[in-house]
Amino acid sequence: METLAVIKIGGNIIDDPGKLDLFLSEFAALEGRKILVHGGGKMATQLAEKLGIRQTMIDGRRITDEETLKVVTMVYAGLINKNLVAQLQAKGCNAMGLSGADGNSILAHKRGAPGSAPHEERQAAGIDRTVDYGFAGDVDRVNGKFLAGLLEQDKALVFAPITHDGKGQLLNTNADTVASEIAKALGAAFGVSLVYTFEKSGVLMNADDDATVIHRINPGTYKELRDRQIIFSGMIPKMETAFAALDAGVRKVIIGKAEDLHELLSGHSGTTIVRH
Amino acid sequence: METLAVIKIGGNIIDDPGKLDLFLSEFAALEGRKILVHGGGKMATQLAEKLGIRQTMIDGRRITDEETLKVVTMVYAGLINKNLVAQLQAKGCNAMGLSGADGNSILAHKRGAPGSAPHEERQAAGIDRTVDYGFAGDVDRVNGKFLAGLLEQDKALVFAPITHDGKGQLLNTNADTVASEIAKALGAAFGVSLVYTFEKSGVLMNADDDATVIHRINPGTYKELRDRQIIFSGMIPKMETAFAALDAGVRKVIIGKAEDLHELLSGHSGTTIVRH
Repeated sequence: METLAVIKIGGNIIDDPGKLDLFLSEFAALEGRKILVHGGGKMATQLAEKLGIRQTMIDGRRITDEETLKVVTMVYAGLINKNLVAQLQAKGCNAMGLSGADGNSILAHKRGAPGSAPHEERQAAGIDRTVDYGFAGDVDRVNGKFLAGLLEQDKALVFAPITHDGKGQLLNTNADTVASEIAKALGAAFGVSLVYTFEKSGVLMNADDDATVIHRINPGTYKELRDRQIIFSGMIPKMETAFAALDAGVRKVIIGKAEDLHELLSGHSGTTIVRH
Repeated sequence: METLAVIKIGGNIIDDPGKLDLFLSEFAALEGRKILVHGGGKMATQLAEKLGIRQTMIDGRRITDEETLKVVTMVYAGLINKNLVAQLQAKGCNAMGLSGADGNSILAHKRGAPGSAPHEERQAAGIDRTVDYGFAGDVDRVNGKFLAGLLEQDKALVFAPITHDGKGQLLNTNADTVASEIAKALGAAFGVSLVYTFEKSGVLMNADDDATVIHRINPGTYKELRDRQIIFSGMIPKMETAFAALDAGVRKVIIGKAEDLHELLSGHSGTTIVRH
């Protein structure tokens, strides 16, 4: 079975040109099929501020009103996505940028709309059902067959976290979720590694010491780490998403620094989350 | 031979939601392979103004400084492109948005850079060589094989007029040129009709009377119309581009109103430009 790496990068990489360039070189050099999912970094917030559009964040999630949706569509699907693709092309990696609307690749629904996830699931994902998130999208379906076809043409895919509802509405979608839903949809066709990069070297025993990476977590050790409050707050939804991805056929989930990409995938760095 | 329609729309459609919706319905219903190339409309200028970025236009061409390049990348490749794709999806047309960087589909070079078009060609296209156009791109190569592969997967392609130089630099490119270069690159594989839409019903005998459409122009009648100054100024580069496309294997070039799309393609409306 061919391997596929689905790698999510966030603001700490996108906002740092030096780190980004190093990461893209590593990504370009990666063997096997690959998909990059990017968040937005500070640029969307900065543009919104310049335009006088007030930004509201609740628990780290942006409230997407109509004007904010325009801003994130411009910054994520336009500025960031196309620059990432052009930079990968310059590194000899034939990349292709996509939003969820392109090729109907990711269908979603407006959060709170009929067909929304049940209360329990939303709670697990850290979503407060009493909040109106505006044009925020929860994923319904990833068109894995279409994506597999592009991967087989030797294209590296670069996804902006913008989806659509099939009725003409674009939706702002959590980039972690986009990455896991893509990984899940392709889990039957490829041996998928899902990589979440963030500012630390992995899940840490001691949050202040980057040398205390926990190399492997399974459901048993996760329960223990959670009980001991070594894993807490923002890391809990990430872990829940990771286990859900494993349940859905993803081979492994890895958490660590984007700069360590090769070591993360070879298991020499970061935290690898597995079923057993 | 399968047919392919390459259709360019400009600001007069993009800036008018009612006309745009009608046009997209016609485009979605169109049989055969199809590619939409869009310009930017007023949105880029409006965003630049809000951000305090001064816009300079020379002979209808935007001077693209670094900040303006960011604006057009956001507006063309992000906001407009993704909304067009989402609206086509809602109409049952499986569209996919692209810039020239995506899949290395359109390679260009910065105007004035080594390898630029010779003076005569640039003059013919209305480009003044004494002007620094900034990050404006002249097209070198369209990856026709890649585009043909996507078309054969029954995707309608939607192109933003943003290209790349293969070295990591995005470039703002004239949408008329993007349309003709795509049409030319696919002229051997498909029976291509290249459609330029604008605010009038076609090339007019009397510029003030929309009922005086010239139905058919060939090189002989073109020379005559030009000598009589019925065709002048901005229409001349369009006509030169049209004849160059025909020389390169495009079957016909049609000029008319976007709202008349079906009639344009069936030859019942607009001006059709042919070799003989």
